[in-house]
Amino acid sequence: PARLEGFLADPRLERAILVLILINAISLGLETSPTVMDAIGPALLALDRAILAVFVVELMLRLVVRRLNFFRDPWSVFDLVVVAVAVVPSSGPFSILRALRILRVLRLITAVPSLKRVVGALLGALPGMGSIVLLLVLIFYVGAVMTTKMFGADHQEAFGTLGASLYTLFQIMTLDGWSSEVVRPVMASHPLAWLFFVPFILVSAFIALNLFIGVVVNAMQS
Amino acid sequence: PARLEGFLADPRLERAILVLILINAISLGLETSPTVMDAIGPALLALDRAILAVFVVELMLRLVVRRLNFFRDPWSVFDLVVVAVAVVPSSGPFSILRALRILRVLRLITAVPSLKRVVGALLGALPGMGSIVLLLVLIFYVGAVMTTKMFGADHQEAFGTLGASLYTLFQIMTLDGWSSEVVRPVMASHPLAWLFFVPFILVSAFIALNLFIGVVVNAMQS
Amino acid sequence: PARLEGFLADPRLERAILVLILINAISLGLETSPTVMDAIGPALLALDRAILAVFVVELMLRLVVRRLNFFRDPWSVFDLVVVAVAVVPSSGPFSILRALRILRVLRLITAVPSLKRVVGALLGALPGMGSIVLLLVLIFYVGAVMTTKMFGADHQEAFGTLGASLYTLFQIMTLDGWSSEVVRPVMASHPLAWLFFVPFILVSAFIALNLFIGVVVNAMQS
Amino acid sequence: PARLEGFLADPRLERAILVLILINAISLGLETSPTVMDAIGPALLALDRAILAVFVVELMLRLVVRRLNFFRDPWSVFDLVVVAVAVVPSSGPFSILRALRILRVLRLITAVPSLKRVVGALLGALPGMGSIVLLLVLIFYVGAVMTTKMFGADHQEAFGTLGASLYTLFQIMTLDGWSSEVVRPVMASHPLAWLFFVPFILVSAFIALNLFIGVVVNAMQS
Ligand code: NA
Ligand code: NA
Repeated sequence: PARLEGFLADPRLERAILVLILINAISLGLETSPTVMDAIGPALLALDRAILAVFVVELMLRLVVRRLNFFRDPWSVFDLVVVAVAVVPSSGPFSILRALRILRVLRLITAVPSLKRVVGALLGALPGMGSIVLLLVLIFYVGAVMTTKMFGADHQEAFGTLGASLYTLFQIMTLDGWSSEVVRPVMASHPLAWLFFVPFILVSAFIALNLFIGVVVNAMQS
Repeated sequence: PARLEGFLADPRLERAILVLILINAISLGLETSPTVMDAIGPALLALDRAILAVFVVELMLRLVVRRLNFFRDPWSVFDLVVVAVAVVPSSGPFSILRALRILRVLRLITAVPSLKRVVGALLGALPGMGSIVLLLVLIFYVGAVMTTKMFGADHQEAFGTLGASLYTLFQIMTLDGWSSEVVRPVMASHPLAWLFFVPFILVSAFIALNLFIGVVVNAMQS
Repeated sequence: PARLEGFLADPRLERAILVLILINAISLGLETSPTVMDAIGPALLALDRAILAVFVVELMLRLVVRRLNFFRDPWSVFDLVVVAVAVVPSSGPFSILRALRILRVLRLITAVPSLKRVVGALLGALPGMGSIVLLLVLIFYVGAVMTTKMFGADHQEAFGTLGASLYTLFQIMTLDGWSSEVVRPVMASHPLAWLFFVPFILVSAFIALNLFIGVVVNAMQS
Repeated sequence: PARLEGFLADPRLERAILVLILINAISLGLETSPTVMDAIGPALLALDRAILAVFVVELMLRLVVRRLNFFRDPWSVFDLVVVAVAVVPSSGPFSILRALRILRVLRLITAVPSLKRVVGALLGALPGMGSIVLLLVLIFYVGAVMTTKMFGADHQEAFGTLGASLYTLFQIMTLDGWSSEVVRPVMASHPLAWLFFVPFILVSAFIALNLFIGVVVNAMQS
């Protein structure tokens, strides 16, 4: 086991894994091209399976060495999940999982120290913004219930259900087509609808900006 | 009355109110679904009325204890208004009030200290930005009068009235469809219209950014 | 003349002018409504002319007292220009000037000290950003010449002339409909057009953000 | 050679080159107008060639004096490239190079010290953001492979190939028409597509904001 630990901590192993991730990123990208698949499809899929096997063996060895400590490091759990996605048989109802195989390439984040540091800083800045996230969730929920009740009957696609309203309010917050696609059509049936939407845009855009800048500033200070 | 004060200050009461707000948020959300209403509609509405009754009693007790001091705390007035909305009979011309019942859930802001602090900081940062808000209002008003006079006759929907112009200028400031939906059509009849709109976009977007960043920075310092 | 100076420096005169500006703002706003004009149009126009007369007399008195010093204060020149616009006969080719009368209301900026300070701070922060403005102008000019030569023949409306290209590039920088309205249609005839537009968006949006944030930061420090 | 060095370092030469760049900017802009070309086309093209000849001679003299040191200054290489573009014969497959001649005007950046400083500061702030750029590239690549596999078959134009997906994801990150043009159509065939797109918008817009603000802050500190 001591030899195993040494092997796993060897920087050459880390570099080899990094190279495999990069090769795998390219091979999974090439798999999206029908032309390439016609030419060298079986070879690509074999390469894919071989790299996956290496990842599985490496993770199992880490599990054996660290045991429960493995699960205390969120990065290890992250590695395990993105690799596990590719091992689950992806046929029938799980065919979506085939598209998720590329998530494996996100292991690059754990394999490159500077990436790990940046992502860690951004994630570490999130908890300090918990109240603002909660406030935004609250405003979206209240806004979605109100718009569903007020405009749902006349504007099925945009506000027919609570889910549709949440999606449409998110679209409005991003300012994408809020006027021509959402608010002007609603004002055709409810002329005073701007009394809800204009304040909603001001408040939600303002809180979102506050949230984003807060996280950026927090992340920079650390 | 001393026992009443003790009862109202009891953290267990606060927690109970918080739980009721959350339950009410869920029940009011479920009421937007026709399927759920068909199944358990009467039960939901009864739950709604019961929780409302608790809120009314709690607020009346607070009023009795604090008397006029109650109205000196803006958060108490906020609680009173969002609960009162649900008590007003909401039939005929007031049917809109039924959609406003969900505003009651905003009591979460007064019930969760960290939310109250964040909202207080944001609102407290607003007065320092009064001059910039006034400047933005002035520019919008002057712009709306100008565009109504210049483009109103040829572009009824966008600039037909002072109100329509104010709405359209707000849309332009958010950069949503400003070119294809507003300025290009106007330039078809008034080729030099960009002489007004391009500076308006630069000035209004700049002042709005200034305003938002100013409030965020002020709120962060406090 | 000493008595005249005293009269012009009297805070009661300043307050009276401020009130007249506000009344004039409302009357000019009401003039955009055909209903109101049908009812009290002549009275509004008479009020308008009376207020304008007061402004003209006040400015002439200031001119008499300060003489050439009057023109050394940019705020005085600003007042003179926005009032002069309304005195010029606005018939025939100058009918546009009628819409510019509302500019008079911008005197509020010189009449309210806190507004004057904010606008002064924003304008005072601009010269420090001269290099970035020049850089943005340069990039727009080079981009407009390039797109006119490359896409002008096939896309007349968007890139037919240097002016059209400058306008379209401004639209692209604001991210409004850049893809569906401009770049996707251009890519139909020039598949590699994204090689120009994607870097243009990144560079121009980045420089514009830099410019805006720079001015805001400069203005805040003063 | 000492006399040559003195000649090249003469501020009067620098000013003359600057004036030539400005004249050339105007002449290249005028060349986009068919009316102007019909009137004085040959004169403009002759002026263009004459200025180009001066630039070529100046750069060759600098090359002779500085030899290999010439290539160690990235600004000199920049000058060389934008001038070289105009010397290459631009017929047949290289006709695109004719549109690139205007790039010569970018020499203004090297000729005006304050522009050179601003651009240098912005470029110098980029390397410090390498990790965030890498993170954004990684997220775009993973997202493009996923969307091509999941939505490519049903939405050829937006996600048919890896390249199309990368372009569409860039459009989505800029928030331009993301909902009506991309996500709503995709949700018509894949109702749960928002589970991918809403997090993608949040994460990519957040990282991009982080990147832009980071570079601005870095550039300001230097
Ligand atoms: Na849009
Ligand atoms: Na937009």
